[in-house]
Amino acid sequence: MPARMKAAVFVEPGRIVLDDKPIPDVGPNDALLRITTTTICGTDVHILKGEYPVARGLTVGHEPVGVIEKLGRNVLGYTEGQRAIAGAICPSGHSHACLDGLCAQDGQYSRHGLKPMGGWRFGNSIDGAQAEYLLVPDAMANLALVPDDLSDEQVLMCPDIMSTGFAGAESGNIRIGDTVAVFAQGPIGLCATAGAKLRGASRIIAVDTLPERLAMARRLGADEVIDFRAADPVDEIMRLTDGRGVDVAIEALGLQSTFEACLRVLKPGGTLSSLGVYSGDLTIPLKAFHAGLGDTKIVTSLCPGGKERMRRLMNVIAGGRLDLAPLVTHHFPLERIGEAYDLFAAQRDGVMKVAIVN
Amino acid sequence: MPARMKAAVFVEPGRIVLDDKPIPDVGPNDALLRITTTTICGTDVHILKGEYPVARGLTVGHEPVGVIEKLGRNVLGYTEGQRAIAGAICPSGHSHACLDGLCAQDGQYSRHGLKPMGGWRFGNSIDGAQAEYLLVPDAMANLALVPDDLSDEQVLMCPDIMSTGFAGAESGNIRIGDTVAVFAQGPIGLCATAGAKLRGASRIIAVDTLPERLAMARRLGADEVIDFRAADPVDEIMRLTDGRGVDVAIEALGLQSTFEACLRVLKPGGTLSSLGVYSGDLTIPLKAFHAGLGDTKIVTSLCPGGKERMRRLMNVIAGGRLDLAPLVTHHFPLERIGEAYDLFAAQRDGVMKVAIVN
Amino acid sequence: MPARMKAAVFVEPGRIVLDDKPIPDVGPNDALLRITTTTICGTDVHILKGEYPVARGLTVGHEPVGVIEKLGRNVLGYTEGQRAIAGAICPSGHSHACLDGLCAQDGQYSRHGLKPMGGWRFGNSIDGAQAEYLLVPDAMANLALVPDDLSDEQVLMCPDIMSTGFAGAESGNIRIGDTVAVFAQGPIGLCATAGAKLRGASRIIAVDTLPERLAMARRLGADEVIDFRAADPVDEIMRLTDGRGVDVAIEALGLQSTFEACLRVLKPGGTLSSLGVYSGDLTIPLKAFHAGLGDTKIVTSLCPGGKERMRRLMNVIAGGRLDLAPLVTHHFPLERIGEAYDLFAAQRDGVMKVAIVN
Amino acid sequence: MPARMKAAVFVEPGRIVLDDKPIPDVGPNDALLRITTTTICGTDVHILKGEYPVARGLTVGHEPVGVIEKLGRNVLGYTEGQRAIAGAICPSGHSHACLDGLCAQDGQYSRHGLKPMGGWRFGNSIDGAQAEYLLVPDAMANLALVPDDLSDEQVLMCPDIMSTGFAGAESGNIRIGDTVAVFAQGPIGLCATAGAKLRGASRIIAVDTLPERLAMARRLGADEVIDFRAADPVDEIMRLTDGRGVDVAIEALGLQSTFEACLRVLKPGGTLSSLGVYSGDLTIPLKAFHAGLGDTKIVTSLCPGGKERMRRLMNVIAGGRLDLAPLVTHHFPLERIGEAYDLFAAQRDGVMKVAIVN
Repeated sequence: MPARMKAAVFVEPGRIVLDDKPIPDVGPNDALLRITTTTICGTDVHILKGEYPVARGLTVGHEPVGVIEKLGRNVLGYTEGQRAIAGAICPSGHSHACLDGLCAQDGQYSRHGLKPMGGWRFGNSIDGAQAEYLLVPDAMANLALVPDDLSDEQVLMCPDIMSTGFAGAESGNIRIGDTVAVFAQGPIGLCATAGAKLRGASRIIAVDTLPERLAMARRLGADEVIDFRAADPVDEIMRLTDGRGVDVAIEALGLQSTFEACLRVLKPGGTLSSLGVYSGDLTIPLKAFHAGLGDTKIVTSLCPGGKERMRRLMNVIAGGRLDLAPLVTHHFPLERIGEAYDLFAAQRDGVMKVAIVN
Repeated sequence: MPARMKAAVFVEPGRIVLDDKPIPDVGPNDALLRITTTTICGTDVHILKGEYPVARGLTVGHEPVGVIEKLGRNVLGYTEGQRAIAGAICPSGHSHACLDGLCAQDGQYSRHGLKPMGGWRFGNSIDGAQAEYLLVPDAMANLALVPDDLSDEQVLMCPDIMSTGFAGAESGNIRIGDTVAVFAQGPIGLCATAGAKLRGASRIIAVDTLPERLAMARRLGADEVIDFRAADPVDEIMRLTDGRGVDVAIEALGLQSTFEACLRVLKPGGTLSSLGVYSGDLTIPLKAFHAGLGDTKIVTSLCPGGKERMRRLMNVIAGGRLDLAPLVTHHFPLERIGEAYDLFAAQRDGVMKVAIVN
Repeated sequence: MPARMKAAVFVEPGRIVLDDKPIPDVGPNDALLRITTTTICGTDVHILKGEYPVARGLTVGHEPVGVIEKLGRNVLGYTEGQRAIAGAICPSGHSHACLDGLCAQDGQYSRHGLKPMGGWRFGNSIDGAQAEYLLVPDAMANLALVPDDLSDEQVLMCPDIMSTGFAGAESGNIRIGDTVAVFAQGPIGLCATAGAKLRGASRIIAVDTLPERLAMARRLGADEVIDFRAADPVDEIMRLTDGRGVDVAIEALGLQSTFEACLRVLKPGGTLSSLGVYSGDLTIPLKAFHAGLGDTKIVTSLCPGGKERMRRLMNVIAGGRLDLAPLVTHHFPLERIGEAYDLFAAQRDGVMKVAIVN
Repeated sequence: MPARMKAAVFVEPGRIVLDDKPIPDVGPNDALLRITTTTICGTDVHILKGEYPVARGLTVGHEPVGVIEKLGRNVLGYTEGQRAIAGAICPSGHSHACLDGLCAQDGQYSRHGLKPMGGWRFGNSIDGAQAEYLLVPDAMANLALVPDDLSDEQVLMCPDIMSTGFAGAESGNIRIGDTVAVFAQGPIGLCATAGAKLRGASRIIAVDTLPERLAMARRLGADEVIDFRAADPVDEIMRLTDGRGVDVAIEALGLQSTFEACLRVLKPGGTLSSLGVYSGDLTIPLKAFHAGLGDTKIVTSLCPGGKERMRRLMNVIAGGRLDLAPLVTHHFPLERIGEAYDLFAAQRDGVMKVAIVN
């Protein structure tokens, strides 16, 4: 094994560059993964633009697919050479939040409170996956073996967007026969659409404007699609539902306008399931909130992680319930990750997700 | 039985007067209740001030305790002369919302949508309880017999504030060992405090400023009380919890400031359970909302109604779990309901709830 | 409208005959449905054989599809001539059980307790659907309009087997990525298989022995099928799951052997969701129950009913999520219902469900 | 620190003796606790009698209160000398079951299945707490610091019986206003009674025969008590509830007779929450099970563990919600643990729980 590796590093706002770094030491509870495939997330673009602050010199990326290169002394149940993934969220397993069923908010309760999003470590608080090697902490809680018959690309969406999108459907508590609206059909929204179908929604209305995204939404489960440039989606959804509104509305963009539209199309007693990352205060319109008397629920979800979640998501793929490989529209070797960022940040050429391969 | 009765009627903003009205006819599914005790709710004061619109001439009030005077032809299982209450929310039992477990939002789904709060009929869409007689629709779903050993005053809070306050604890999904903050200790907030204790919260922090309310909060279950004029409640709660925040925060006032304070004291993954009636748009501060990534939940509850809910609440009283009679600080005969409104609206003389007796 | 009608009537064990009866009077909360299509359920066969007692002279059947012939005076929101169905379980909407979210166990709590299965009235405690006309009680809670683009046969399974089968998946609390076993692939078991898929199970193992049922199971969602005459299903399921067992096992037959097999294939912490109608005491084997320490759950479900449930199920059909029309293998006019019983009771000619048409 | 310690060791059926053992080495994720107080559980008596097999030479006991003597190299967030407890169930935090929210059934899914009760390690699969020192594995998931103002004896019930008893109420999904029966008022049953009250049951009926247990049941929350030698508890409960039955019945003994009685007093739609450890197959009577059509639920719970559970339970004590110290009726030094076993196994002298102090 070499001593150094290539890694995509945050230098300053506007600059993520491929750099050279030492391959990390493997502590007793860690595993070292040789990355074979990874991808770029919308959050990475926020980091690139300086909208979400991370330490200078940090390796970015949180969607690893790879091969176990080295296991810490205490890590049992795995063998070097096995293919594995880890979730974007890496629970310790032993925090109060984890033991309380909320691994994404992992962290120890302390005098300084529970750091929110404490479970998100890769490319946030520790080095991430856009590199030749990745150190996986608390490996026994996080390494999930990839079944032989699934390709890297088939499981590439499990660590983040599939887990997050599905959580939108799960936290929304979708039931058999529900009508669901999903606002925005980027990768997360598309997975929310697929998740709504998997939970038994009988009618799914997807909103976006890009034709290729609306087409993909139909392919993944949407029954109707609305191009928000062609029609007001609130009016259109109320028309489609005969004024009844939807049982669950999923926000998958992070804007006031979509957040508000979700509330406006919700039936009394309905649930707004929010997945978006917002960049400013949000306003809840009085009327759409029924002055607080509508039995409205607003729930937010951070990507669930951990090896059991990954096992379940890979089972969904293995069971033929869903094929997310078509979301991968472009491929780049790690050496050319700069080009991949340019393309993905600009949303050029119908890009949905890029695969970064080693 | 006389043909006419006295009733407190909304005339115009600023004026609710005692008037004379025909005693209503009893349809096949109705029951006529002779009101023996009722009370005034904060919502009635909103109606008085014209802040919540109702039809002119409508009898106000939604908290009835009385005696069955007459039963409709189809109403089985009751006898005239029995003591009964009905919830503020009167489900039909047969609406889509009811059959879906959401009786407060009762209503038929239709082209014009589901009217929110459709289950609230007394003193809203039909004549209410501040009168000598009250027509109870869908009587078999709504009439709950009062056990002999409970007085009118002991069950007077069941129809609205006890049901609503408890719903704040129930919708917040309080668990054994939770720390809970309750913002505002009016009658609803006090019942939320009591409800939090009944669900197993191990530490309850109550916020208000009136000494008699803070004292009552302690009596009903609060472990700590904060006078928001003496200390910033957000700082104080974070100090009391060592920076950890609370598992559940209950909003029982209906202001931006308390709504926002709830979010600020919530741990990641916590639940804001909102009971307040708001009068303007609300703002969700970005940071307190963790940009949408904190697994935060915001839930709202309208008072649950129906005879089964009433039966359960009366059981709580009968079982000695809670005594809400001390909330009744003043008594007025129906003839003097005008004075009762003056006192209650002005929050004079340490008033919490008034009993209106016939 | 004629004064009399044809109806399949229980005479004595072994004899259900087509008889002539008065068309019932329509009370204020009732509706009269002219039956256009109905079917025979396994429960009706139990009634025929005298294994489940009903009153002599009772019209049997609980799966009505028809046209509204006449509406009671209080029944609003419908028009005569509309096509409608009603669930096998007909909640009143106003019982304690209904208002507590448990409509199938509808009934008033009384000195004599809550009669179990009180919500099942058609062909049990009142005249049923195998007739030219059916009186639907509490019509506003029970009549569900059939969308124009759905045929009678497409919605014929909604009243009972689709609702029951889905309940097996819902009560079992199936989650995305679960492995589920379904024991027996009669009509209920097939719908449980379909329901498991609709809730997100990623691997479904169906057990039966009839080739046409195993083939239909695959068509409706099973990933693997086990012929219990060819292999021991417990051994086979443990082998297929690498010894891990299943998350949820659904019992859809009503025998000790299948009940017990469900427990034996369940992982610790798993759920046995029981749909079968048993005819004797059941034994829980100590070891499969982990001596009571396995966090095992056993849940039973009676068919959920009411118009909202029917609306949701018809939405599932309308949304193209599932096509149950292929379950209808044979057709008979009402006049020849005797032949239909013979065929269905004998399970001849690969019969799954028969349509009885008027 | 000495090299050897005293420990109560299982030698053979009928013999647990105080022996001399090496103090264990502390691995990187472990902590060594110097035991200051522990107790004997009914399960230990089963072990003593040879009814539950453990390895010869194993130190028994699973209810530790102590002081941190030594921390493994990777264990952060604690200081040597702090007072701490650990649950009877010691989750790893990183197993599939743990990450799925089911720590008591901790274990890795493997070819050989998930060992049930895998989370129970102390005095079962590893050395236990009836010793001078205890090695706590996965210390960061299991060590819970004891607040200064709580005595050893006040928290002594947290590791097992309080956690188990409360789980009976929690898994039974007790709601505000429920009527609950608890069969058997040994230490676990008494904690179930207390837990039922903490969750909002408005009427609790406790069954036992020993006067001191029935008296303690009243003290901890029972509204009515039934001496099963003086009256048939099923008849009595049906009489007390006017034939309605109970919403939730908790089994806290482990016998067919109590299991069956629970089913017989359950309303349709009710829940049997089972805590007992059974020693033979169980029979479900057909009628009490309503032939599988009663929407009955049977749930079992193994003691929840982990530091977050312990933190919550200690909060309940610290919040003054419950005082379990009166359950400790006798005290013995570790040297005289043999006498303690004799007393406790024979249930002499009104013993409920013994404290074993060092």
